[in-house]
Amino acid sequence: MTSKLLFRHTNLVTMTEATGFGEIMDGALAVRDGKICWLGRDSELPKDAKADHEIDGGGAWLTPGLVDCHTHLVWAGNRADEFERRLNGESYQSIAATGGGIRSTVRTTRAASHEDLFAHSAPRLKDLIREGVTTVEIKSGYGLDLDTELKMLSVAKRLGETHNVRVEGTYLGAHAVPWEFEGRSDDYVRMIRHDHLPQVRASGLATSVDAFCESIAFNSSQVRKILSDAKRLGFNVKLHADQLSDSGSAGLIAEMGGLSADHVEYASEASVRAMSSASTVAVLLPGAYYSLHESHKPPVESFRRGKVSMAVATDCNPGTSPCSSLLLMVNMACVLFGLTPSEALAGTTRCAAQALGLADRIGRLEVGLEADLALFDIDHPRDIAANIGANRCVASWRAGSQLHSGGT
Amino acid sequence: MTSKLLFRHTNLVTMTEATGFGEIMDGALAVRDGKICWLGRDSELPKDAKADHEIDGGGAWLTPGLVDCHTHLVWAGNRADEFERRLNGESYQSIAATGGGIRSTVRTTRAASHEDLFAHSAPRLKDLIREGVTTVEIKSGYGLDLDTELKMLSVAKRLGETHNVRVEGTYLGAHAVPWEFEGRSDDYVRMIRHDHLPQVRASGLATSVDAFCESIAFNSSQVRKILSDAKRLGFNVKLHADQLSDSGSAGLIAEMGGLSADHVEYASEASVRAMSSASTVAVLLPGAYYSLHESHKPPVESFRRGKVSMAVATDCNPGTSPCSSLLLMVNMACVLFGLTPSEALAGTTRCAAQALGLADRIGRLEVGLEADLALFDIDHPRDIAANIGANRCVASWRAGSQLHSGGT
Repeated sequence: MTSKLLFRHTNLVTMTEATGFGEIMDGALAVRDGKICWLGRDSELPKDAKADHEIDGGGAWLTPGLVDCHTHLVWAGNRADEFERRLNGESYQSIAATGGGIRSTVRTTRAASHEDLFAHSAPRLKDLIREGVTTVEIKSGYGLDLDTELKMLSVAKRLGETHNVRVEGTYLGAHAVPWEFEGRSDDYVRMIRHDHLPQVRASGLATSVDAFCESIAFNSSQVRKILSDAKRLGFNVKLHADQLSDSGSAGLIAEMGGLSADHVEYASEASVRAMSSASTVAVLLPGAYYSLHESHKPPVESFRRGKVSMAVATDCNPGTSPCSSLLLMVNMACVLFGLTPSEALAGTTRCAAQALGLADRIGRLEVGLEADLALFDIDHPRDIAANIGANRCVASWRAGSQLHSGGT
Repeated sequence: MTSKLLFRHTNLVTMTEATGFGEIMDGALAVRDGKICWLGRDSELPKDAKADHEIDGGGAWLTPGLVDCHTHLVWAGNRADEFERRLNGESYQSIAATGGGIRSTVRTTRAASHEDLFAHSAPRLKDLIREGVTTVEIKSGYGLDLDTELKMLSVAKRLGETHNVRVEGTYLGAHAVPWEFEGRSDDYVRMIRHDHLPQVRASGLATSVDAFCESIAFNSSQVRKILSDAKRLGFNVKLHADQLSDSGSAGLIAEMGGLSADHVEYASEASVRAMSSASTVAVLLPGAYYSLHESHKPPVESFRRGKVSMAVATDCNPGTSPCSSLLLMVNMACVLFGLTPSEALAGTTRCAAQALGLADRIGRLEVGLEADLALFDIDHPRDIAANIGANRCVASWRAGSQLHSGGT
């Protein structure tokens, strides 16, 4: 057996089982043509195993490359001033009335050149890479006009190519009603359906379409129209659902066969049942919950009962989750939502891959899957969840090529 | 004017005022003999200014080196298994009954060699250094016998020397009642007073003495005896006070002229008044609050009214705050406790220096103070507080010598 890359004496966190870490102690894992071609106990490694490059893990732990399945990582501008103003006692309303909130980001993102947008966003992607992330979903949604939406998606694509990370682009034109369409949201929805969606599809820059279903954004009927058209065009669909109130939208996206319902703090029992039937993933976003001082937790126990897969993501965005640490989200999913350490790690590996429709390619250590890998200098994989704000990732590989290396 | 090190075109975050960041835009700062010898606007830099080494900040922001004024950073063993067991539904009581909790850490720390303890603790110190921390307080308290307490303090000292960080050692023998003294806490207190304190003083390894005043640890009368003796021996004193209930202990340490009252979630109005009179610092520890799912916040508004300085620290420890990110604590102090960004940054610079009795040497950018500095690639200092889990520190200096350098 000849391979390009061979890990020996490395503990493997396979994440192949429905519960637990699927550990293989003192394991070995071989990579050929960018894929995992063998894994098991080191003592059972075929005697004729040879490799161009051999790594002795020395007891470190190898996990699937981490997957951040919900981000708005591409933006220009900075809204830390609003964070400061709120803490100095100013209200959300007053900040919005003076041009703050998402409108501020839309203005700065529209005005930014492709180059500036790339330069502004790259540090956030590098933060994720240093933690062992090998796949990142990135949404548009701060343009709300076709040119800017496509600019965001093309920056996202270039970020992935430049950094050797897999980037999954998602079109989120239905993130907010742009000011040009104030009071005419149906007109904007029409423009998305007849103009934006076909052109985004033609660009090849997005594989999925997302929307924000909430009283402050788009209603169920509008969302259904947009996502139905998106499906017809061949997109995967997903939804910002039941974040601030129960609108039944987690159930709606499940009925439409969507990949994921995201946020879902207020998802009802009926919605959970629909998600269970449709294998729609619940994407939990503890960073937004934390930032917004939410107190209504997502129905984790119902998800468990219904065998709904739970993913965990950063929601990296300039307003409600200015966060570029997926490892911290693993910890917050445990502390704030009560996930177990293995559930939280599954949320950023196996279940996050499922949320992106990539379960047949990434998210587990399994023969035939891509060799997206992260190496952690820890005593046990539960340490990843127990540590608050520490990064023990020492290296990562994407399809067998080294991505992150050296100290953190 | 000749200096060893000169920063030019660097925005300075002086932290010299009671409120705000004390910014100097496009500033310059010169270092000689390890101290700040000039600072001001770059345009006002003396014409004859020369330096061995000049750094153009290019618009980056220079802050005082960060100060983590409350840590238990030296320990052996790992309690992530307890974190996992609790999330799998096991009670604190059941975990304690099977040897968990602080007793577990005492066992492993007693058993560890000096070398092992150093190797186990160094990564946590490096985490802090990467964030711009230049001074760390480290407590003993996982030995509870004299040999282990001294071993911890000597590891702490060596950590500082090896990493060029200022370490302030604190003796915390009164952290818990060791099992050898179960039911005989007065006997243990006597041993601390008559045996440990003088020998710790003679070792020169600690400048302060701390204790844990709580129903599960030591009562006010015991604490008063220990800290009175400590003061007589020339130690500074401080106290884990009013964390889980109001025992009046924040007031007690203020009456004793203590440097700080730490945790203080339940500090009463009377205690706040005593702290105000005595200039005792309130050390806020949001990591423990977060981990323990506390809901009773420290009385921040009362501290403001009484002009009580508020510091912010990691409380880095294996059980209730397994956290080695001071920058995340700055964010949590804002999000969880409502501090403003400048209050939270003062909490890890000016006020943290005050909590260690070092206000005349570190914690601000001011002529005559030590050149402990951290350089951040940010748009504005409030970004440090607004970001969740990002580290934009690109370099740091301790007494004018470069400490951290390069990417994060």
